[in-house]
Amino acid sequence: MNTPRIVIVGAGFGGLQVAQSLANSGADIYLIDRHNYHTFVPLLYQVATSQLEPEYIAYPIRTILRRFSGKRYQHKPKTRFVWGEVQRIDFAAQIVQTDDCAIAYDFLVIATGSKTQYLGVTGAAEYAFPMRTLAEAVKLRNQILSCLQLASQESDPDIRQQLLTFTIVGGGATGVEMAGAVIEMLRGKLRQDYPTLDLKQVRLIVIHSGDRLLGEFSQKLGIYTYRKLTKLGVEIYLQSRVNQVTKTSVHLHNNEIIPSATVIWTAGLEANFPPTSADISTAKKGKLLVHPTLQLLEHPNVYAIGDLAYVEQNNTPLSGVAPEALQQGVTVAGNIQQQLRGKSPQPFSYFNKGRLAIIGCYSGVGKIGNFEFTGFLAWLMWLAVHLVYLPGYRSRLLVLLTWLYTYLLNDRAVRLILPISDIENHERSSN
Amino acid sequence: MNTPRIVIVGAGFGGLQVAQSLANSGADIYLIDRHNYHTFVPLLYQVATSQLEPEYIAYPIRTILRRFSGKRYQHKPKTRFVWGEVQRIDFAAQIVQTDDCAIAYDFLVIATGSKTQYLGVTGAAEYAFPMRTLAEAVKLRNQILSCLQLASQESDPDIRQQLLTFTIVGGGATGVEMAGAVIEMLRGKLRQDYPTLDLKQVRLIVIHSGDRLLGEFSQKLGIYTYRKLTKLGVEIYLQSRVNQVTKTSVHLHNNEIIPSATVIWTAGLEANFPPTSADISTAKKGKLLVHPTLQLLEHPNVYAIGDLAYVEQNNTPLSGVAPEALQQGVTVAGNIQQQLRGKSPQPFSYFNKGRLAIIGCYSGVGKIGNFEFTGFLAWLMWLAVHLVYLPGYRSRLLVLLTWLYTYLLNDRAVRLILPISDIENHERSSN
Repeated sequence: MNTPRIVIVGAGFGGLQVAQSLANSGADIYLIDRHNYHTFVPLLYQVATSQLEPEYIAYPIRTILRRFSGKRYQHKPKTRFVWGEVQRIDFAAQIVQTDDCAIAYDFLVIATGSKTQYLGVTGAAEYAFPMRTLAEAVKLRNQILSCLQLASQESDPDIRQQLLTFTIVGGGATGVEMAGAVIEMLRGKLRQDYPTLDLKQVRLIVIHSGDRLLGEFSQKLGIYTYRKLTKLGVEIYLQSRVNQVTKTSVHLHNNEIIPSATVIWTAGLEANFPPTSADISTAKKGKLLVHPTLQLLEHPNVYAIGDLAYVEQNNTPLSGVAPEALQQGVTVAGNIQQQLRGKSPQPFSYFNKGRLAIIGCYSGVGKIGNFEFTGFLAWLMWLAVHLVYLPGYRSRLLVLLTWLYTYLLNDRAVRLILPISDIENHERSSN
Repeated sequence: MNTPRIVIVGAGFGGLQVAQSLANSGADIYLIDRHNYHTFVPLLYQVATSQLEPEYIAYPIRTILRRFSGKRYQHKPKTRFVWGEVQRIDFAAQIVQTDDCAIAYDFLVIATGSKTQYLGVTGAAEYAFPMRTLAEAVKLRNQILSCLQLASQESDPDIRQQLLTFTIVGGGATGVEMAGAVIEMLRGKLRQDYPTLDLKQVRLIVIHSGDRLLGEFSQKLGIYTYRKLTKLGVEIYLQSRVNQVTKTSVHLHNNEIIPSATVIWTAGLEANFPPTSADISTAKKGKLLVHPTLQLLEHPNVYAIGDLAYVEQNNTPLSGVAPEALQQGVTVAGNIQQQLRGKSPQPFSYFNKGRLAIIGCYSGVGKIGNFEFTGFLAWLMWLAVHLVYLPGYRSRLLVLLTWLYTYLLNDRAVRLILPISDIENHERSSN
């Protein structure tokens, strides 16, 4: 048999893990991504709130691959990075078509993650701010800073109030951390930059369809989070749904209209996969149905991992966090090697080390095994865990320095309003 | 007399200096800029070549103004920042009109600098990459990295060569430092990121209309620079002019056509000033004619400084470097205070502390008084001087750390291809 070729689509947590775990396998590996960098998604909200610089949480994929050719790996570098958007996957011919090349595969791992779902709400796609990519986080930062700037120059009190009202749709982990981070931002020294502006006028609203925040945690932690945010001045609408988003307002199901220039969308996600030659079986939110081994039902040489795959454990679907994707990456790398040796792939089993969520202003919530905890300890653990998982020593050092700067001096350093293009892949299509 | 109101348009080196020198004057000061940050222009080329992060050389204007309210200043903060593009200056009514407000002035300082001039070359405005703003520097970084990426995936040798040919138009200080920085970038560890690419194929071309590089320095230093760059592998065309720029090539006057996907334009600048109610006298390159006191010929309460003003010293026009603008800022602040006291403004006199230019790869050139020097000393002095003048301790520390990282490890950390919008003020016009 010739050297087998393994193609991995997507360089998120899952895809990169597969590439790393296979680096020593001797196989030819192609890693495809539409960006030339890996985005450390858990820290995006800190980019959006002027805390971290975008470059700190984005890591050039080629530099990550460079490490695989170090001493720890006996084979010559056989992992290649392909920069491109996948146009089509042909399962029959075993070919992945990108915008400028076609790559044949023996094994394929699809790890393209999820994208924002606007749940059919009118105007949400046009006017709400999602926060799933680096460009989106920078655009949101621009928006928040622009609103403060414009409000400080605005004489009409109604327009000023509208510019100073920030609405977050969704009360899961992302919505909660975003709310806390905006509060932290506005409470710090930033207010000295706007001496003519009364930042007490800022309204921060969280709209959540469920009956408690952080649905993935216990009721106790949800109530703690609710109390904490309310005490910080956040207005929380539970069991509320958004009907419509406009450039200047958000409309609720009960016909209430909130004038708000900034609507941050953290409410829905759906699987994001490239067009394929044949239909593949999907579960809810468009996730791909897979065998317990993570193979697609129809194609034993194709795997799906991360946000893209519908995986249950103890009859509960996995929740789409990074550790799940990382562990799935290890399993898939092992399973492909099993198949290459003519053996059977093994079922995936998720080892849950615990779960943390950050609220901000020195508090968070966490659950490890049956032990639940809240407050400063959870906050510190969240930061520590994310610092450790961040790729690259340089980024870790810079993020640590920035956090020390931010939390000791209560200041924000990054406040540029730098135009980011609307079209994510603008620079590629223009080439 | 009521509190006088001084309006400053432009927060570059000159405009900021005027604001700082007047902070203690008791006057009401309005500082207007189209960006919410001050750009440290001399280090833009390091952003374009993946060395510095954009945030390190851009400083929020409001944070700079915040410092003016410190203990050193006895008055309450009276300097206000207005974020906006000036639409029109009405000298008769003494009003500056921005996109969303009209500001009356008693004294006006115009410090809007210069913009790129394409000298009538066909296609240059569309296809060449200027490097005068932060967004332009990031766009150029995207372009350089995209070309390397695409070349590594390209099978056609002609297209690959075109992607790997970088042409710099203009052999002044900006063209020379850009050439050196691209060489530094490609010689470093970056090549490990492109194992399939032969970086020896890279062609770097400098096209200069004059008969020597660095026309503002002596012939000796120009020849040194020429030899140094040639030794580093740069192809230098002296006494050559560009006729046309296309998406894939640059055409010279002698009908030579160089296939080149990236044309960096450092050749021309012209004064950049907002529309005015009445004509004002201009010299060459559209610069404003001013009295020796820096007052406009027609309007004694309006000053022009920096790149915008045509100022001679010993019958030679000033060359448009930062120290000139800074010193002019101090003079103008003093002159306005003289006028407020009913006294006569004083003529400006430039004290030239010397001049440095960086070539890169540990060499530069410099002239202090009659003493000329080249090599490592000039290189180190250039970096040290620019580090000292950078605003903010945080930026200084981060830039220093980055330089140590870059020069000790011979690596580049920032390599994201992050889409930047084509329209500079996109985010404002959409509000």
